Amino acid sequence: MSIFNKNSSISLDIGAGGGASWEFFKDLRKILSFTGKWTNTGDDGAVFKMPDGKSLVMTTDAFIIDPIFFPGGDIGKISMCGTINDLSVMGATPLGIALSVVVEEGFPSSDLEKILHSIDEISRLTKTPIVTGDTKVTNKGKIDKIAITTTGIGMAEKIISNNGTKPGDKIIASGDLGEHGAIILAYRFNYKTRLKSDSQPVLKEMQAVGKYLNAAKDPTRGGLAENLNEIAEKSKIKIVLDEKDLPYKKETRAISELLGINLMALPSEGRFIAAVPEKFAQKTIKILQKYNKTAKIIGSVERGKGVFLNTQSGGLRPIEMPRGKLVPRIC
Amino acid sequence: MSIFNKNSSISLDIGAGGGASWEFFKDLRKILSFTGKWTNTGDDGAVFKMPDGKSLVMTTDAFIIDPIFFPGGDIGKISMCGTINDLSVMGATPLGIALSVVVEEGFPSSDLEKILHSIDEISRLTKTPIVTGDTKVTNKGKIDKIAITTTGIGMAEKIISNNGTKPGDKIIASGDLGEHGAIILAYRFNYKTRLKSDSQPVLKEMQAVGKYLNAAKDPTRGGLAENLNEIAEKSKIKIVLDEKDLPYKKETRAISELLGINLMALPSEGRFIAAVPEKFAQKTIKILQKYNKTAKIIGSVERGKGVFLNTQSGGLRPIEMPRGKLVPRIC
Repeated sequence: MSIFNKNSSISLDIGAGGGASWEFFKDLRKILSFTGKWTNTGDDGAVFKMPDGKSLVMTTDAFIIDPIFFPGGDIGKISMCGTINDLSVMGATPLGIALSVVVEEGFPSSDLEKILHSIDEISRLTKTPIVTGDTKVTNKGKIDKIAITTTGIGMAEKIISNNGTKPGDKIIASGDLGEHGAIILAYRFNYKTRLKSDSQPVLKEMQAVGKYLNAAKDPTRGGLAENLNEIAEKSKIKIVLDEKDLPYKKETRAISELLGINLMALPSEGRFIAAVPEKFAQKTIKILQKYNKTAKIIGSVERGKGVFLNTQSGGLRPIEMPRGKLVPRIC
Repeated sequence: MSIFNKNSSISLDIGAGGGASWEFFKDLRKILSFTGKWTNTGDDGAVFKMPDGKSLVMTTDAFIIDPIFFPGGDIGKISMCGTINDLSVMGATPLGIALSVVVEEGFPSSDLEKILHSIDEISRLTKTPIVTGDTKVTNKGKIDKIAITTTGIGMAEKIISNNGTKPGDKIIASGDLGEHGAIILAYRFNYKTRLKSDSQPVLKEMQAVGKYLNAAKDPTRGGLAENLNEIAEKSKIKIVLDEKDLPYKKETRAISELLGINLMALPSEGRFIAAVPEKFAQKTIKILQKYNKTAKIIGSVERGKGVFLNTQSGGLRPIEMPRGKLVPRIC
């Protein structure tokens, strides 16, 4: 049932990734149905075919996170990584980013300066210029510190979509997952950890292995559980992970257990997962391990539907699309 | 002095248009100095030359206005008009818009539905598809209702810049100005008015007269006073307006006087001003009057510098770049 058909209000789960976000997105697309000549590939970015055959990709991300500074990064860094990674996993090279900032009156100038330096660092590292921007200041108390929207465009020779997975493919992760989500939750619950956010651009890794991949996705909101369910549904295939290969560090698992948060829904901001034909799987992992030693094969693709975990106690357990009250403002 | 050089905090005037916004922008560009292959024309949008000689234009606008519904529009409508107009005045045809929404938990679904329908209406009217988006929901009280960022890209055969004005040109306005600012202020101060916001796309008007123009700008934040000062400074010319030709309705003037707000700093969201060679001035106005009867010539361009008002009592009075405590969250 559409959220617009009832006398209702906006709930947190709509913006948290997972099932409710998807349903909201469908409602929204019923209203905003004019998409012109753009191709909807079902990925995070939209695709416009250029006269020369290349694809222009456009994507946008809003960040209103808490805390805005955290071990391993800040709101500036993840705003940049989020958008650059959405372009990267589609096989696009970023052309430029538009930066929108809404900030509260009285926000410390030195904090804004730090955030801008983080943005500049990722801009230079990935050769992605900040080409235009807008800054608005609200009265005190009308926004919690700062919100940033990054919108990126990029150009791709060939789009990597999340619907190209085939039976026989291997599922790979570019590194251990969920650390960004884990450290933000740890902060919220006053839990001390030595983990750092995994936020970083995946552009170079994606460019190194893109040609081998049938599908790719970055596990941000909704984490691995959402990514795999999306890939399985769109590619009409079944994914089976092995419990012993789940790509999570001990500390990440500990935080998830302690706080009762679904491990596989924890977001990363500097990883991707991909489907790769079996014959290229070892080669792909070898290349990825040059960037991150924890890159590995985590599962395989079969005919069928759904996402399952092959548990160490034996037997298949379904991995479902995350649902319900997720913690907001993590990424 | 840079705001980053002192132990300071962000003030409202940085986001309100006018002098402080310009100084902040310069500080920001010292940090975000990597602009790659993009051309900085000094306009609202950035320009990227395509291999076929056309120009790709990108621009972004953040809206966190109060009220979100007002006579003649809502936050959805002005978000769309703001970005489409920034593309239009540069001579670009919009290709697509990315929509980012940050909304407060508990926001009425029916209000969001109305806002989305406003967005859709402008999208269809201007044939500008919403190609991608992101929605985040914050806990109650962490944002005042809703913030929207619209980022647009467009393609131009030839860029119309704000630095092409020449001595001898006429300055024209596409219609009476300041109504959007006037009605928002009237609402804030509980003053009843029959005025409506002027928010609307200027795409068609701009396409009809673009070939005659030497420069164009939309007088949003900072209004006519900021637009003219920007054009005069960038084109290194002097602009003289005639007081009797100032393009403001009686009601707009009354609100400005009553509230002690600078008339010429009141923003419009559906108008543009332009510099046009004298030989095309009458023709341009005739075309524009098909869209809006109040379109007219408001001044002329001379050698020299600065912006002046030829007052009815005789004598030239300088029109300065707006400064100081402007009212925030108008557009």
